[in-house]
Amino acid sequence: MKNTLKFIFISLVLLPLVSNAQQTGVYPPGTQPNEHNINGADYPRIGEDGKTYFRIYAPDAKKVEISFRGEMTKEADGFWTLVSKEPEVVGFHYYQVIIDGVGTADPNGKPFFGMGKWVSGIEIPEKGVDYYKAKNVPHGLVSESWYYSDIRNEWRHCFVYTPAGYDKDSGKKYPVLYLQHGMGENETSWANQGKMNFIMDNLIAEGKAVPMVVVMDNGNIEVFKPEPGETPDQARMKFGADFSSILINEIIPHVESNFRVLTDRENRAMAGLSWGGLQTFNTTLNNIDKFAYIGGFSGAGQIPLDKLDTVYGGVFKDSKAFNDKVHVFFIGIGSEEHPERAKGLSDGLKAAGINNVYYESPGTAHEFLTWRRCLNEFAPMIFKK
Amino acid sequence: MKNTLKFIFISLVLLPLVSNAQQTGVYPPGTQPNEHNINGADYPRIGEDGKTYFRIYAPDAKKVEISFRGEMTKEADGFWTLVSKEPEVVGFHYYQVIIDGVGTADPNGKPFFGMGKWVSGIEIPEKGVDYYKAKNVPHGLVSESWYYSDIRNEWRHCFVYTPAGYDKDSGKKYPVLYLQHGMGENETSWANQGKMNFIMDNLIAEGKAVPMVVVMDNGNIEVFKPEPGETPDQARMKFGADFSSILINEIIPHVESNFRVLTDRENRAMAGLSWGGLQTFNTTLNNIDKFAYIGGFSGAGQIPLDKLDTVYGGVFKDSKAFNDKVHVFFIGIGSEEHPERAKGLSDGLKAAGINNVYYESPGTAHEFLTWRRCLNEFAPMIFKK
Repeated sequence: MKNTLKFIFISLVLLPLVSNAQQTGVYPPGTQPNEHNINGADYPRIGEDGKTYFRIYAPDAKKVEISFRGEMTKEADGFWTLVSKEPEVVGFHYYQVIIDGVGTADPNGKPFFGMGKWVSGIEIPEKGVDYYKAKNVPHGLVSESWYYSDIRNEWRHCFVYTPAGYDKDSGKKYPVLYLQHGMGENETSWANQGKMNFIMDNLIAEGKAVPMVVVMDNGNIEVFKPEPGETPDQARMKFGADFSSILINEIIPHVESNFRVLTDRENRAMAGLSWGGLQTFNTTLNNIDKFAYIGGFSGAGQIPLDKLDTVYGGVFKDSKAFNDKVHVFFIGIGSEEHPERAKGLSDGLKAAGINNVYYESPGTAHEFLTWRRCLNEFAPMIFKK
Repeated sequence: MKNTLKFIFISLVLLPLVSNAQQTGVYPPGTQPNEHNINGADYPRIGEDGKTYFRIYAPDAKKVEISFRGEMTKEADGFWTLVSKEPEVVGFHYYQVIIDGVGTADPNGKPFFGMGKWVSGIEIPEKGVDYYKAKNVPHGLVSESWYYSDIRNEWRHCFVYTPAGYDKDSGKKYPVLYLQHGMGENETSWANQGKMNFIMDNLIAEGKAVPMVVVMDNGNIEVFKPEPGETPDQARMKFGADFSSILINEIIPHVESNFRVLTDRENRAMAGLSWGGLQTFNTTLNNIDKFAYIGGFSGAGQIPLDKLDTVYGGVFKDSKAFNDKVHVFFIGIGSEEHPERAKGLSDGLKAAGINNVYYESPGTAHEFLTWRRCLNEFAPMIFKK
């Protein structure tokens, strides 16, 4: 019996540790483990200058790569190593370990859903910046809430942030922000990659944002598979196309029945990043009676400025009516991801009399630090009318 | 600019799908995808008879294996395949894809924390059994709740199940079950692998269990690393040794300050699986003034029957006093994991006058189906005194 226990113990704990053993005891000076490493994993590491250090045990592999970073070097001890040539940009970056051509999540890291599957993430610390860090302030909860979708004929779940104190007073109701991920991500991404809970906790604790509920659901309504004879672009246009319907007919009613939220348009906002920004534009601008605040973070939606009178059912035709209804129309973008597109949209809308806020995140690309910053800018603006 | 978007789209979505393309359109008859596959992934699959079918795209790998199941066969199209020789036992089983010796989570599946890292899971359906399925009943929430640990000097989080209706009535308080995972697992395992939320939802909806709060935290308090000169067994005994202290001094106060729970011993239970069962025995039996219900599910704790008068501070010495205080002492085990150990413990305690409930899960081993069943048996017994 003792042997059985020992076998279980060796199988479950020792073998993985041995096969992924990374502890060398000697680390490049000034480096720290990636904050997303699992307990006991010392690599990847990040230097004070933002350089990244990867180390993977794969004595039998022919080639090991780190995605976006290149081929690793095989060492005599069976480990493969890679040090980035340049410091990496601050913030959160996806990566995969590619073992003889197969992209996998790093066995030593916490997985993140991005790039259409579960991959790994490395966090380059941003010195002196703590708005997305856990602080000694009251913390809200991120809860998983299940519902049955008649549209999709399946059980679905959303993640719901409720602010600190939510369950102390059952008489109080809160405004709601519906917050969407990008293509290739899912309903877990805003809390995991985006640290939206700490951003909201900190904003609310400092009195910058109104206490609100934030709902994150899965916008990947159709799996992306081009039909025979269809181009990827044609297929892409169908991907996520049904999200407005499921949001309005199922997610919002589910949230309003199961959480203490205010249900009028003045207390309902929607924002999304990248593809979720397009979903936000499509949902809110076609349903302006239901949303008073709109945010596109690196939004993939391009509103044709030469057709402003007719697009989205003519919602922009009467700019005064639009401005009266939409209290914040936020257009955010990273400076390193061709911001001229978003800037042009913002300027064009302003020229047509449509109020909007343009925000450009300095030094960041189409990545989560841009979107953390966008949320940190957008959330304080909403529900203050 | 359109090209930029297209590049982002191709990078984030198309490439992963192409490189992991699994869609063949022709599947082994009668098979269904594993319920934990990500959207669009068709493998692994499970046959009606419980046989499993694995398929991995790795044209450049020399050898691909599925852990516990063996080596895959390379096909002409760059895919590797494996069909289990025998049907697998019903329930949840861990697996890894081993690419040229490197154990990885299946890129096509949802990751589960087990075996000391993030790995994959396959679910063999159990016909006619639905106590752990999502049903059309009111659903509770599983929430992530953060706190700062002075003992560990770090931010930690627990997952907290609150039953349906919890936030409708802020006057009502609930009893609490502290529920621990096994070695190599973590605070996410009971909800992900164990489906504890659906088990509790269904038991509560049927009136079998009292509505209760369930708290799941990380019991891996020390990373398992043998010190120089230390045997693995010696190191193992230190692993998790501090859990009682963090549970009693930090987790329980955090939960009692932040959730509407009852705070007397009559309304506090603890249970755990495997290593978590040992932590449960060590915590509750040394602190019987704080817990009235105890559950060990395949518990790794072996109480020496010949020293009953002295172990755990002599808690068993006066059996009547013990029986008056501990209303349920549950000892569960799977029939395929040497149940004689647990049965002997139960019988020996009974012979010494210590009331306890013995439950043996038929046909299951040291795996999560044993523990789902244990929870389904244990939860209805508690908080009914």
